[in-house]
Amino acid sequence: MSEVNNQFNLPVNQLPKRWYNLAADLPEPLPPPTDPEEGPSRLEMLPKFLLKSVLKQESSTDRWINIPEGIRELFIQAGRPRPLMRALRLEKALKLPDNIRLYYKREDLSPTGSHKVNTALAQTYYAAKEGFPEVTTETGAGQWGSALAYAASLNGLKCRVFWVRAAYRWKPGRRTLMNLFGADVFASPSKETEFGRKLLKENPQHVGSLGIAISEGIEDALNRDGSIYCLGSVLSHVLLHQTVIGLETIEQFKIAEDNPTLLIGCFGGGSNFGGFSLPFIGEVLQGKRECNFLAAQSEASPNLVKGKYIYDHGDHAGLTPLLKMYSLGHDVEMPEIWAEGIRYSAAAPIMSAVRKMDMLDAVAYPVDEVHVYSQARRFIQTEGFLPAPESSYGVCAAIDKALEFKEKGEDAVIAFNVSGHGFLDMQAFAKPLKLE
Amino acid sequence: MSEVNNQFNLPVNQLPKRWYNLAADLPEPLPPPTDPEEGPSRLEMLPKFLLKSVLKQESSTDRWINIPEGIRELFIQAGRPRPLMRALRLEKALKLPDNIRLYYKREDLSPTGSHKVNTALAQTYYAAKEGFPEVTTETGAGQWGSALAYAASLNGLKCRVFWVRAAYRWKPGRRTLMNLFGADVFASPSKETEFGRKLLKENPQHVGSLGIAISEGIEDALNRDGSIYCLGSVLSHVLLHQTVIGLETIEQFKIAEDNPTLLIGCFGGGSNFGGFSLPFIGEVLQGKRECNFLAAQSEASPNLVKGKYIYDHGDHAGLTPLLKMYSLGHDVEMPEIWAEGIRYSAAAPIMSAVRKMDMLDAVAYPVDEVHVYSQARRFIQTEGFLPAPESSYGVCAAIDKALEFKEKGEDAVIAFNVSGHGFLDMQAFAKPLKLE
Repeated sequence: MSEVNNQFNLPVNQLPKRWYNLAADLPEPLPPPTDPEEGPSRLEMLPKFLLKSVLKQESSTDRWINIPEGIRELFIQAGRPRPLMRALRLEKALKLPDNIRLYYKREDLSPTGSHKVNTALAQTYYAAKEGFPEVTTETGAGQWGSALAYAASLNGLKCRVFWVRAAYRWKPGRRTLMNLFGADVFASPSKETEFGRKLLKENPQHVGSLGIAISEGIEDALNRDGSIYCLGSVLSHVLLHQTVIGLETIEQFKIAEDNPTLLIGCFGGGSNFGGFSLPFIGEVLQGKRECNFLAAQSEASPNLVKGKYIYDHGDHAGLTPLLKMYSLGHDVEMPEIWAEGIRYSAAAPIMSAVRKMDMLDAVAYPVDEVHVYSQARRFIQTEGFLPAPESSYGVCAAIDKALEFKEKGEDAVIAFNVSGHGFLDMQAFAKPLKLE
Repeated sequence: MSEVNNQFNLPVNQLPKRWYNLAADLPEPLPPPTDPEEGPSRLEMLPKFLLKSVLKQESSTDRWINIPEGIRELFIQAGRPRPLMRALRLEKALKLPDNIRLYYKREDLSPTGSHKVNTALAQTYYAAKEGFPEVTTETGAGQWGSALAYAASLNGLKCRVFWVRAAYRWKPGRRTLMNLFGADVFASPSKETEFGRKLLKENPQHVGSLGIAISEGIEDALNRDGSIYCLGSVLSHVLLHQTVIGLETIEQFKIAEDNPTLLIGCFGGGSNFGGFSLPFIGEVLQGKRECNFLAAQSEASPNLVKGKYIYDHGDHAGLTPLLKMYSLGHDVEMPEIWAEGIRYSAAAPIMSAVRKMDMLDAVAYPVDEVHVYSQARRFIQTEGFLPAPESSYGVCAAIDKALEFKEKGEDAVIAFNVSGHGFLDMQAFAKPLKLE
């Protein structure tokens, strides 16, 4: 299509018209969410703070779900389809033979810096359709909060973000971005909720946690007229919205006249790697292609590597229903890392099911992150793009695997997802690499 | 071409093959550079620290200059061609009638955050061709230093950046970016040069200036074997390299089946607005189109608005030859603003010639920048992209003019250049808009 062979762009009119739902192709149904033995029913609570549209998608077993035209227009406004690139310069630097090829998908071109906008645009579109003037959420690293603030702005909605105070403090740039989009951002625990006020009374300097922020967001959505809660990872509808990434990639590999043998991405809750890989996993299950899958994790939160396949809550406080997931325990303590966005206790149920079927490998990198950002730097210096700290895990694993295949003399076509850019998180590179 | 009518993408194989040189179409030749009456000849010094290739381009009067295939490949690697977008959502928010339309060019998709990469890739390509293993430069706001560090990395060159200490201190993220690309970055004045050591001896806390940083860069390039100096604005070869922006835009307006009546961009030294507008200005001079041009400046450095058309140095210390420019005086003191990249004393000679011919209007916005970032915020909240602080001046002028045309009931097709993104400069928005 192009005169150079390193860029594979889909025309705007070839943006996918449907999302892909793996539930249709799983040999066994996904284990359903359940309630814990104690306390109120979490399942009965869900419809009070989640959108009808997404709850319907959450339990759907239809293989294809139409993307409403209004959401497709928002995807296009946000710059979709995004390029797939052949990493020719990186391949050369790694001295790879012709039979080992590297490709990457550029989700870093997102307006707020990550793939999170894909589901944020869908959820805020549905929120507006269902008549809600306001969305509420929590955020940890800040990527999800930024994406929802952006998407709310484009859909004319108000947005309230409860942001773990520890991150709120050291990421003023990301806070400004949310504010520019018109969102109200609260350091959590906050004075906005009863739960937050209680915690602040006990400790006015409380640094918060993701679990607390979720609790505050849900309480806020339940108590405010016209407010609805949005989630940025783990749930099946979130991964469904993200499949636009992988569906584009499948078409782009046709243009490239090549076929990936290994898909790689960073993995916390699983939304970016799910979005990238699920359409490929579906084709493997349908017998249409052969491909392996590798999740790049941190030893801070190696849920696929060391977690158990159990029913667990998705949040620290246990307000959400129990989901069957590879989990380290919903109240586990995890060491701090710079790539906060992949520091999460459990893997999305749908990706956990894939893992259980032995179709998904995983690797976990040391908490010091030096190897990860050193490898990412080889990508930065050859391809020229700055991956997010989180995305750097996928970049690193792709380089590591390519060198491993080279060592073994094996063929490989590796595709990895650069899920976001790192412009708002430069300290993540500066500190471990001692660039200051 | 696309099913939605707000995005006009050129295929990769339609990336321009030639740069456009306005010198061929000017009714009178550009006044040549000269030497001041006192001191050594600056003209004779130029070949000692500037590339042969760019010096040849600097004085060329050929209308079209071929873009070497190697540079086109680098442009493609950097994501060119970049989209032209119709600002349908912004138009709607401003309640513009159908006969007032807004378009914007997305240079913010640049890998380092600004249009500066266009000339950085060209200059480093030529440096490598001419056998130099190293490039040296100065930077003020940091956009040029980042772009050159990036381009040097892709061309396998070392890079040394002398960065005004005042900015070096408060922009650690941008410093990290340059370091990631492998550049050595020095706060200027530095201990690397005799001039810098002299100044530091007088005052160890010296905050530096662009003039001092240029002096250090030139001294460094002259004293180091294999080092050559690169400039990021003002000179004609820099604007020539940037014409790829406007040449793409002309083709994209054909796809859009529309014609701009007014081109707008922010303006400091003139490299982004020159690159955007020169191909259009050429067609006006050739009688092929009618179009007006508006430069958006700051009252901190209103060189086109209040400057005089005189022979002046481009640098504070007076090391460079005299150029005929609209200048406020090469040693003028300018108040600090957040949009540091447009705070420059003089307008590029070629844009000054256009101004002298009454083809270029200019407006200067107050130093407090509140109006500029407030208008930019309307763009951010509707179109969803974050312009650089500098680019916000062009966005603001486009909105102001659109509302003015609406008030007057006049037709207008306004195109503006979003020359960069603001992810590394979030304070610029937070402080004037009181978002903290």
